[in-house]
Amino acid sequence: MSKRFLNFQPKVQEVSNYFKVLFRWKGSVYKLLRREFLVFLGAYTVISLVYRLVLNAKQKETFDSICIYADDFSSLIPVSFVLGFYVSVIIHRWWDQFLAIPWPDRLVYNVAAHVDGDDESGRIFRRTMVRYVNLSTLLLFRSVSQSVKKRFPTLDHVVNGGFMTEEERKSYEEIPSQHAKYWVPCIWFINLVRLARVDGRIASAPAVKSIIDEVNRFHDQCDEIFGFDWVSVPLVYTQVVTIAVYTYFLACLFGRQYLQPDAGYQSKGRNADLYIPVFTLLQFLFYFGWLKVAEDIMDPFGEDDDDFEMNLMVDRNLQLSYLAVDDLFHSYFPLVKDLHYG
Amino acid sequence: MSKRFLNFQPKVQEVSNYFKVLFRWKGSVYKLLRREFLVFLGAYTVISLVYRLVLNAKQKETFDSICIYADDFSSLIPVSFVLGFYVSVIIHRWWDQFLAIPWPDRLVYNVAAHVDGDDESGRIFRRTMVRYVNLSTLLLFRSVSQSVKKRFPTLDHVVNGGFMTEEERKSYEEIPSQHAKYWVPCIWFINLVRLARVDGRIASAPAVKSIIDEVNRFHDQCDEIFGFDWVSVPLVYTQVVTIAVYTYFLACLFGRQYLQPDAGYQSKGRNADLYIPVFTLLQFLFYFGWLKVAEDIMDPFGEDDDDFEMNLMVDRNLQLSYLAVDDLFHSYFPLVKDLHYG
Amino acid sequence: MSKRFLNFQPKVQEVSNYFKVLFRWKGSVYKLLRREFLVFLGAYTVISLVYRLVLNAKQKETFDSICIYADDFSSLIPVSFVLGFYVSVIIHRWWDQFLAIPWPDRLVYNVAAHVDGDDESGRIFRRTMVRYVNLSTLLLFRSVSQSVKKRFPTLDHVVNGGFMTEEERKSYEEIPSQHAKYWVPCIWFINLVRLARVDGRIASAPAVKSIIDEVNRFHDQCDEIFGFDWVSVPLVYTQVVTIAVYTYFLACLFGRQYLQPDAGYQSKGRNADLYIPVFTLLQFLFYFGWLKVAEDIMDPFGEDDDDFEMNLMVDRNLQLSYLAVDDLFHSYFPLVKDLHYG
Amino acid sequence: MSKRFLNFQPKVQEVSNYFKVLFRWKGSVYKLLRREFLVFLGAYTVISLVYRLVLNAKQKETFDSICIYADDFSSLIPVSFVLGFYVSVIIHRWWDQFLAIPWPDRLVYNVAAHVDGDDESGRIFRRTMVRYVNLSTLLLFRSVSQSVKKRFPTLDHVVNGGFMTEEERKSYEEIPSQHAKYWVPCIWFINLVRLARVDGRIASAPAVKSIIDEVNRFHDQCDEIFGFDWVSVPLVYTQVVTIAVYTYFLACLFGRQYLQPDAGYQSKGRNADLYIPVFTLLQFLFYFGWLKVAEDIMDPFGEDDDDFEMNLMVDRNLQLSYLAVDDLFHSYFPLVKDLHYG
Amino acid sequence: MSKRFLNFQPKVQEVSNYFKVLFRWKGSVYKLLRREFLVFLGAYTVISLVYRLVLNAKQKETFDSICIYADDFSSLIPVSFVLGFYVSVIIHRWWDQFLAIPWPDRLVYNVAAHVDGDDESGRIFRRTMVRYVNLSTLLLFRSVSQSVKKRFPTLDHVVNGGFMTEEERKSYEEIPSQHAKYWVPCIWFINLVRLARVDGRIASAPAVKSIIDEVNRFHDQCDEIFGFDWVSVPLVYTQVVTIAVYTYFLACLFGRQYLQPDAGYQSKGRNADLYIPVFTLLQFLFYFGWLKVAEDIMDPFGEDDDDFEMNLMVDRNLQLSYLAVDDLFHSYFPLVKDLHYG
Repeated sequence: MSKRFLNFQPKVQEVSNYFKVLFRWKGSVYKLLRREFLVFLGAYTVISLVYRLVLNAKQKETFDSICIYADDFSSLIPVSFVLGFYVSVIIHRWWDQFLAIPWPDRLVYNVAAHVDGDDESGRIFRRTMVRYVNLSTLLLFRSVSQSVKKRFPTLDHVVNGGFMTEEERKSYEEIPSQHAKYWVPCIWFINLVRLARVDGRIASAPAVKSIIDEVNRFHDQCDEIFGFDWVSVPLVYTQVVTIAVYTYFLACLFGRQYLQPDAGYQSKGRNADLYIPVFTLLQFLFYFGWLKVAEDIMDPFGEDDDDFEMNLMVDRNLQLSYLAVDDLFHSYFPLVKDLHYG
Repeated sequence: MSKRFLNFQPKVQEVSNYFKVLFRWKGSVYKLLRREFLVFLGAYTVISLVYRLVLNAKQKETFDSICIYADDFSSLIPVSFVLGFYVSVIIHRWWDQFLAIPWPDRLVYNVAAHVDGDDESGRIFRRTMVRYVNLSTLLLFRSVSQSVKKRFPTLDHVVNGGFMTEEERKSYEEIPSQHAKYWVPCIWFINLVRLARVDGRIASAPAVKSIIDEVNRFHDQCDEIFGFDWVSVPLVYTQVVTIAVYTYFLACLFGRQYLQPDAGYQSKGRNADLYIPVFTLLQFLFYFGWLKVAEDIMDPFGEDDDDFEMNLMVDRNLQLSYLAVDDLFHSYFPLVKDLHYG
Repeated sequence: MSKRFLNFQPKVQEVSNYFKVLFRWKGSVYKLLRREFLVFLGAYTVISLVYRLVLNAKQKETFDSICIYADDFSSLIPVSFVLGFYVSVIIHRWWDQFLAIPWPDRLVYNVAAHVDGDDESGRIFRRTMVRYVNLSTLLLFRSVSQSVKKRFPTLDHVVNGGFMTEEERKSYEEIPSQHAKYWVPCIWFINLVRLARVDGRIASAPAVKSIIDEVNRFHDQCDEIFGFDWVSVPLVYTQVVTIAVYTYFLACLFGRQYLQPDAGYQSKGRNADLYIPVFTLLQFLFYFGWLKVAEDIMDPFGEDDDDFEMNLMVDRNLQLSYLAVDDLFHSYFPLVKDLHYG
Repeated sequence: MSKRFLNFQPKVQEVSNYFKVLFRWKGSVYKLLRREFLVFLGAYTVISLVYRLVLNAKQKETFDSICIYADDFSSLIPVSFVLGFYVSVIIHRWWDQFLAIPWPDRLVYNVAAHVDGDDESGRIFRRTMVRYVNLSTLLLFRSVSQSVKKRFPTLDHVVNGGFMTEEERKSYEEIPSQHAKYWVPCIWFINLVRLARVDGRIASAPAVKSIIDEVNRFHDQCDEIFGFDWVSVPLVYTQVVTIAVYTYFLACLFGRQYLQPDAGYQSKGRNADLYIPVFTLLQFLFYFGWLKVAEDIMDPFGEDDDDFEMNLMVDRNLQLSYLAVDDLFHSYFPLVKDLHYG
Repeated sequence: MSKRFLNFQPKVQEVSNYFKVLFRWKGSVYKLLRREFLVFLGAYTVISLVYRLVLNAKQKETFDSICIYADDFSSLIPVSFVLGFYVSVIIHRWWDQFLAIPWPDRLVYNVAAHVDGDDESGRIFRRTMVRYVNLSTLLLFRSVSQSVKKRFPTLDHVVNGGFMTEEERKSYEEIPSQHAKYWVPCIWFINLVRLARVDGRIASAPAVKSIIDEVNRFHDQCDEIFGFDWVSVPLVYTQVVTIAVYTYFLACLFGRQYLQPDAGYQSKGRNADLYIPVFTLLQFLFYFGWLKVAEDIMDPFGEDDDDFEMNLMVDRNLQLSYLAVDDLFHSYFPLVKDLHYG
C-alpha cells in the first residue's frame, strides 16, 4: 500500500517533489530491481572482460560484428510501446480491483437505519447481521489475498477472531460444494432479514427491499473481486511483453559494449570508453522498472510494499460495523440552533 | 481460462516472476505459435539455402538489392502501433465480455428473500424459479459458447441435465420465432412471480418490483453477451492489422537474410553471419505473439486454454441456486453475543 | 453487421484464423478499397511511364530530386499515430452507439409483469402498450438509419406495417413541433399507464413507479442515439486525419518510384527495380484500410456490410413484444420436482 | 454543432467520402486556420527572400548552419505524440460534456405520469413544475454558454421569454448568495411536489420518491456541467502542447528553407528547389489542425460552427415540456386489435 | 483551481487563443519550472565554459566523444511515450477525483422534500440534519486537503465554524477508533432519520428509503475520495518516469553542447554555434512541463494554482444546505398561466 509520498515533503515549491521521489527506497524501483540489476551488471562485466582480455584480434573482429548487429537490432524492438500499452491495461485493472473491493459500510448503514430494537436481543440481532457481512468479506479475502490467508490460515482462526461461531463453522463446512463458498453468510444474512420482517424488527416492505438490494450490490462486488482473481490477464500478453524486454537487454549486453575504435561504431558516436555503461544502466532501471510496475500491481492483494493493506481493512470494517449498529445507535444530541440560524 | 499464474511461484522476491513466466507452456505464446513459427523458419531456411547454394553471382546481386529494399521497407511498417491500438480495443472488449456474463446470483438472492413458503410446494416453487433463470443462461451460452454447445448439443441434453422438463421443452420449441429464444424462460419466471403475488407467496408490492427489476437487469446482461456475439470487431480492422503483420514478416524473410559482405549492409551492421537469425525469431515470437493475444481473446467463450470456463459456471450456478433457495433456506443459528460484545 | 467470422473456421488450431481472415471478401478491406486502389495504381503507373519514356536526362534529374524530397518528406508524416488515436475514438463511439440502441425488452417485461387482465381487452391493452414502445423506436430509427428509412419511407409504411393506426398517425402529424417527435408514443404509453392504474389493471404504486422508471430509461437511450446522430465527431479532426493520409500517399506516388541507379537512393537500398511496387501497395492497403475502418463505422446505421442490421431489430422487437405480453402470458407448467430435488 | 456531414454524400460507395470531406469549408480546418496559415506562409517567404537576395556568401553559410541545426532539431520534437495524447483527453472531455447536458425529459415524464388533475389548475400546476425545470437549465446555460448568454443577457430577457414570472425573479434576486444560484428553481419544484402530495395531486409515496430521485439526477447533471466549466484542463498541459507545436514550426521556418546545393542537405534529399514548400504547408495544416481540434472543442458551449446548439435545446426543451404535460395529456386512442392480433 | 482561461479572450477568432495561452503566468509552466530551468541553464553554462576555456586539446577530444555518445544515447530514451502514457493515467485519476467529491446537494434535496415541519423545531431538525452532512465532508476534507486542514487545523475550529456543537465534538472524540472517523456524523444523521420516522416528520417508508439510499451514495463518495488519498499511483511508476526525464536531460547537458567543428557532429547539422541553446531550452520547458502536469495534478486538494478550491466548496455547501432546507422551504408563488398557455 503506497502511502501518499508527496505529503512527506513539507515545502512543495522549493524543489521538484519528483526529484525527491528519486531517493525513496521503500516500494522503490531500486529495491524491486536490485537482484536483476546485479545480474545484468555482472553479465555485462564478464563479457567486457572476456573481450578485452581473452579474445585475439580475429575473434575480436567477429565479436565486433556480432555486437554491431545486436546494437542495430535493439533499435528494432519497440519496448516502449509494448510496455506503454501493457502497463495501461494493468494499471486500469489494478484500480478497478481497488474500486471493486466490497466494503460493508452500505449494508451496515442499512441495518442501522432499518432494523429496530433497543434491547439486548435487538443489539445482538444487528451485531449478528453485520458480523455475517464481515465474515463474507473475510472468507473472500482469504481466497484472494496472501496476507489475509497468512493471518487466517484456517477456519479456526476465523472462529477465534470472532467472525464465526463454532456452530456456524460446522454448518459452513458441511455444505457440499467444491466451488467457492464465501457467499454463504450472505444467505444467512438474508434469512435474518426475513426473520426480522416477520418479527416486526424491520418496519416496512421498502426497508426490506433496500437491504436486499444492498446485499446484492455487496455480493456483486465480492464476485467481481473473485472474477479478477479467477481470470487474469492472458498469459500470452505477459509473455510477449516479457520476451520483448528480455530480448532487448540481451541485445544490449552485446550492442552496448565498448568496441575497439575501428570497429565501425564511430558513425554512431560510440568511441568514448566509459568503462561503466552509465546510460545503459539507467535505461535498464527505466525499462525493467516499467515492467516491474506491471508485475508489482498485477496481484495487489499480496504483501508487497505497494499492495492494498487487506488486514487493516478487515479490522477497520469490523470495528466500524459494531460502532455503527450498536455503540452509536443511540447517539442523539439535543437539537440546538446552529451558528447561522436566523 | 487463465489461472492465476503468479500464485505458483512460492517466493516472489527471489527472482522476477516475469522471468519464470517465460517458461510456462499451457496457454503460452510458444504453444499458440508453434505452427506459424515452423513455417516461418522453414521459409527462411529455404530462401537462405537457395541464395547460398543455387544463385550465381549475377543473381545474387539482384537478390541482394531486393533484400536491401525489403529491409528498408520493413522499417516503414508501424507494426507496433497498429498492434498496440488494436490489442487495446480487443482486450477491453474481452474484459467487458467477462463483466457482461449474466450470473443468476442476484435473482436467486431475491427469490430467497422474497418468496415465502416452507412446505414442499414452496420449495418446488422457488426451485422452479431459479431453474428457469439457469435455463435462460444455459440457452444463451449454447448459442455463444463452443464448449457449452459441445456439452449440450441438443435440447435433449438440456432436458436430461435437469434444466428443463419435457413439457417445457415442447412448449419452447413451438414458439414461432426465427430469432434467438433464450429469453423465453424469463417470461415463464415472470409468470411465476405474478402467480406468487396472487397466491400471497410474495408478501409485498416492493418485493415484486425488486424481483422484476432484477429480471430486467439479468436480461440486459444476456442481451449484452448476445450483442458481443452478434456484432464483432469490424472485419476491416482485423484485416488491416493482419496485413500489417504478415507484410512485415514477408519483408523480413528477405530483409533479414545474411548477404555477401559487399552487398551494402555494412552501414547497418549486418556483416555477422549468425546462420540462425536469433533476434529475428525472437521478434517473430514477439510480434506474432502480440497478434495472437488478440486472436486468443477475440472469442473468449471457446475452448482455448485462456477462455472462460463456461461449463464450470453452468454447474456452479445451478448448485448455488438450489443451495440458496432451498438447502440453506432454514439456516438459522442461535443468536449469541459475539467476541467483541460489551 | 459483421457476423462472427471466426466461427466459420471449423478447426481453430490448425492454421492461424487470422491468416484465413485475409481471404474474405464481404465487408473486407479489398472490397472497400477497390476503387481507391485502382486510382493509386493508375497514377503510379502513369508517373512511372512518363519518367521512363518521356523525360530527357535533364528533366529526369529534376524529377529525381523531387522524388527524393518526397520520399524524405513522407517519413515525417506520422500517419500511424494519427490513425491510431483517431480510430480509437471512432471505434469507442461505434460500440457506445451499439450499447445505446434502445431495446424494448425491459419495458415489455414490465408490462408483462405488472399489467393484469386475461380477457381480450386486457390483451389488447398490453399489446397497445408495447406497440407504442416499438413505434417509438421505429420513428427514431427512421431518422437515424438509412436502411430503416428506406424500408419505411413515409408514415404510410409505418401504418401499414402495423405499428400505428390511422388515427394515431393523424394525431401525431398534427403536433406542432419542428423538432424530432419520436418521443410522442412514450407519452401515449404513459397515458395508458395512468389509465391502467385508475382502472386497477396495474395493482400497486411501486409497479407504476417501475414502469415509468423504465420509460425514462428507454427514452434516455433514444435520446442518446439521437445525440450521436446530431453531434458527430468534429469535422476538423476528420479533415486532419484525411489530409495526413492523402498527403502521405501523394508523397509516396513520387517518393516510391524507381529512379535511375545514380539518383542517390542507394544509401536507402532502392536500387532494385521491382516494376510493381509490391510493398507500397501493401502499405496502401494497410493505411487506407485503417482509414476505412473509421469511415466504415462512423455511421453504423447505414447499409454497409458491417453496419448494424436495424431492420432485423425492428422485426425481432415487435415479435418478442407480442410474444411476451400476449402469447406467453399464460405459459404455466405444472410444478414438478426437478432432477436434483432431494 | 457539426451536422452529420456524411449524409450529404448521396452515393456512398462511389468515391471515398473522406475524399469529399476534404473540400468542405464550414467548420473546416481551412476556415479555422486561415489566419495562422497566412502568417506562417508570410514569415517563410520573408526569410526565403532575405536568404536569396540579401545575404552575402559568408552570411549564407552561417544561415545554412542554423537551418540545418533547426531541421535536425525539429525531428526531436514529438509533436504527434503530444497532440495524440492531449487531443484524446480533450475529445473525451468534450463528449462527456455532451452526455452531461441536463435534459428535462425524465422529469417531464414523471410529472406527466404522477401529477394528476384535468382542470385548469391541474394544467397550470404541471406547467409551472416543468417551467421551473426549464428555468433551472436556462440559468445554468446562461452561466456556461456564450450563445445562451448572448440571447438572454439579463434576467429581464428570461422573464420576457416566459421562463420566469416577475415575482419569482424578485425572490430569486433577493437570495443572499455569491455562489451560482441555478439550483433555486429545483427547490421551488420540490416545494410544489410537497404541496401536490398534501393536496392529493400526487397519489402515492413511491410517486413522490420517483420525482425527487429524478430531481436529484437532474441536479447532478447541472452540477456536472458547472464542474466542467469551473475546472478546466490544467493550464500547464495546454501550454506544454502549444509550446511543442509552436517550437516545431519555428524550427520548420528555418529548417525547411531551400538552401544552396552545397549546404550539406543532399544526404537528406533536399536539393529540389520547390519555391513553394508544398509538403511543409500540408504538414502545417495537419499539425496545427490537430491542435485546432482541441481548441475548437475545448469550450463546446460557444458559438463556433462545431459547438453544441444550446439555444435550439432551450427552445426544444420548453416545447416538449408543455406538450408532454399538457397538450398530449389527454391523447387516448380507442384500443383496437393490431395487425398481428390473432 | 484553473479558471476557464479561454473566457478571458474577448475576440476568439482573431488570433489563436492557444497563442495567447503561451503568455499567462498564473498556474503556468514557466512559474512551475522557474527553479528547475535556472538549474539546468546554469549547469549547461558551466559545462560550456569549462569546455571552451579550461580544457586542452586532448581533453577536448575526450569530452567530444563523451558528448557525441550522450547525444546518441539521448535519442534512445522514449521520454515522450513514457510521459504520454503516464500523464494519461494521472489526468484520468485527477478528473475521477473531481467527480468523486461528495456534494451534499442530493441529501439536502431529500431532506427538503421529505422531512416535514414548519415550526421552529422542524426548522432546527432539518438544519441539524444537513449540518451533519456538511460536518462529514468537512472532516473528510480535513484529512485529505492541505488547504482545508490549514483553515481548520483543530476540532476547535470546526466547532467555532458552526459545523459541530461542543457536545457532539466531545462524543466524537470519545469514539475509540484509530481509523478515520469522518463517517460518524452519517450515523448521527441516520439516527435522526429513524427519530423523524417515529415522530411522523417523515411521512412514508419510501421516503425513508430514499434518504438512506442517498446517505449510502454520499458515504460511497467520501470513501472514494479517501481511497484516492490512501492508495496513490505506485511509487515505481513515478520513479520510472522521473528517471527517464532526468536521464534524458543529463544526456542533453552534454549531448547538446556546441563542439569544435571537427568533432564529428557535421553529419547531424550541429556546426552552428548558437551560444544559447534555444531549442534545447524549449525542449526542456516542454518535457519538464509535461512531467509537471503530472506532479501538479497528482494531489489536487492542495494549495497550488490549479488545485480544487476546497474551502470555497465548504462555504458554498453550508450556505446552499441552509437555504434549501430552511430559507427557501416556503417559497411558493401564486400559480399563474405562463406565456405559452393556450
